[in-house]
Amino acid sequence: MSKEEAKKRAAVYAADFVRSGMKIGLGTGSTVYWLIEELGNRIKQGLNISVVPTSTQTQLLAKRLNIPVIDLNAAAELDLTIDGADEIDTQLQLIKGGGGALLREKIVAAASKELIIIADHSKYVQRLGKFPLPVEVIPFGYQFVLKKIQGMRVNTILRIKQNNPFITDSGNYILDCFFKEIDNPFELNSNLHLIPGVVETGLFIDVAKKVIIAADDLHIQVFLKK
Amino acid sequence: MSKEEAKKRAAVYAADFVRSGMKIGLGTGSTVYWLIEELGNRIKQGLNISVVPTSTQTQLLAKRLNIPVIDLNAAAELDLTIDGADEIDTQLQLIKGGGGALLREKIVAAASKELIIIADHSKYVQRLGKFPLPVEVIPFGYQFVLKKIQGMRVNTILRIKQNNPFITDSGNYILDCFFKEIDNPFELNSNLHLIPGVVETGLFIDVAKKVIIAADDLHIQVFLKK
Repeated sequence: MSKEEAKKRAAVYAADFVRSGMKIGLGTGSTVYWLIEELGNRIKQGLNISVVPTSTQTQLLAKRLNIPVIDLNAAAELDLTIDGADEIDTQLQLIKGGGGALLREKIVAAASKELIIIADHSKYVQRLGKFPLPVEVIPFGYQFVLKKIQGMRVNTILRIKQNNPFITDSGNYILDCFFKEIDNPFELNSNLHLIPGVVETGLFIDVAKKVIIAADDLHIQVFLKK
Repeated sequence: MSKEEAKKRAAVYAADFVRSGMKIGLGTGSTVYWLIEELGNRIKQGLNISVVPTSTQTQLLAKRLNIPVIDLNAAAELDLTIDGADEIDTQLQLIKGGGGALLREKIVAAASKELIIIADHSKYVQRLGKFPLPVEVIPFGYQFVLKKIQGMRVNTILRIKQNNPFITDSGNYILDCFFKEIDNPFELNSNLHLIPGVVETGLFIDVAKKVIIAADDLHIQVFLKK
């Protein structure tokens, strides 16, 4: 099974957890793409939901498929959020933000009763950190934060897009931090947050309740948070 | 001595710590106003400095007085930052952000070798919290953060200006949180930072090295960090 097929199978499997009447948080990325397609089909067949998108990209796709979009501030609590991840460890801790939507993804996940993560098998790792950790920073002081993290002996680069700094949906920059191996994700997340200028990190700690991974051999693995 | 005279006296006293060749972080507010005026006078008399302003308001004033303004990202480390505060406790922990510039103020202070706080005597308190703590939040999820803090049994309101949400220099909102008494400022600051959507808090912990307070009776009190 190709990686793309795996993503689609995980997404379609997760769509079964979406029921009429629910307010759903929709993540961002190539795996969530398949989920949105699937939800669009089910809405045509009578599924009645409203969604909060975590990015402009997801919002455009949802609107194109006639999925009713609502504002998070008007929605109060969401029933369920489904999102992808860049790395998932055996404790179901995550690195997210490869696509740059980590801030809204984290807010929407926190505002939901449950977070389900969907991914292909390549994202499941023994230890977080091989994937560079995205850290969203205020442009005004990004050099200060960059030097702070480099001072932890971590290779850190400003994310660039078309020769300019990549700009998030909230108008910030992203630093990609090559930690290689993260020993204590909880502690690292807390410490990074205390650096003035850091808005959010891609470490999602104790947030995922269920992780759905499509493996090579056509079976689905579901990991539940202890 | 009026409160306004006290502010001016503290500011002029602090200006003596500014020496030629220094890169200076300039805070924001009615006490710093007097500092900027004083630095403008001294520059006319030959003082040679460059400054990083923490707000549009300070930047405009500095430019009007021909004080050379530089960009923080180009400046690397600053020699000294001088700023005001809304509350200062006996451990020199601070609440700042009444003027809404807390984010840039905290970044600039952290990027400086030293932070000097100037204030009139009314700002010096036994315990922080009577002044409502400003918390800067991402507009996308401000209601979520508002409810989280209200869930700590703390009266919390969105800061309003001319019938609309007050917008910070970084495009965010401010929540004013009426804690009344803050038992553990360090812990509170850490916990607030872990709420997705919180960008920065007005708690400045272990940042101020020197606090200059102009008292009623024409003397100046200088508190040094242990």
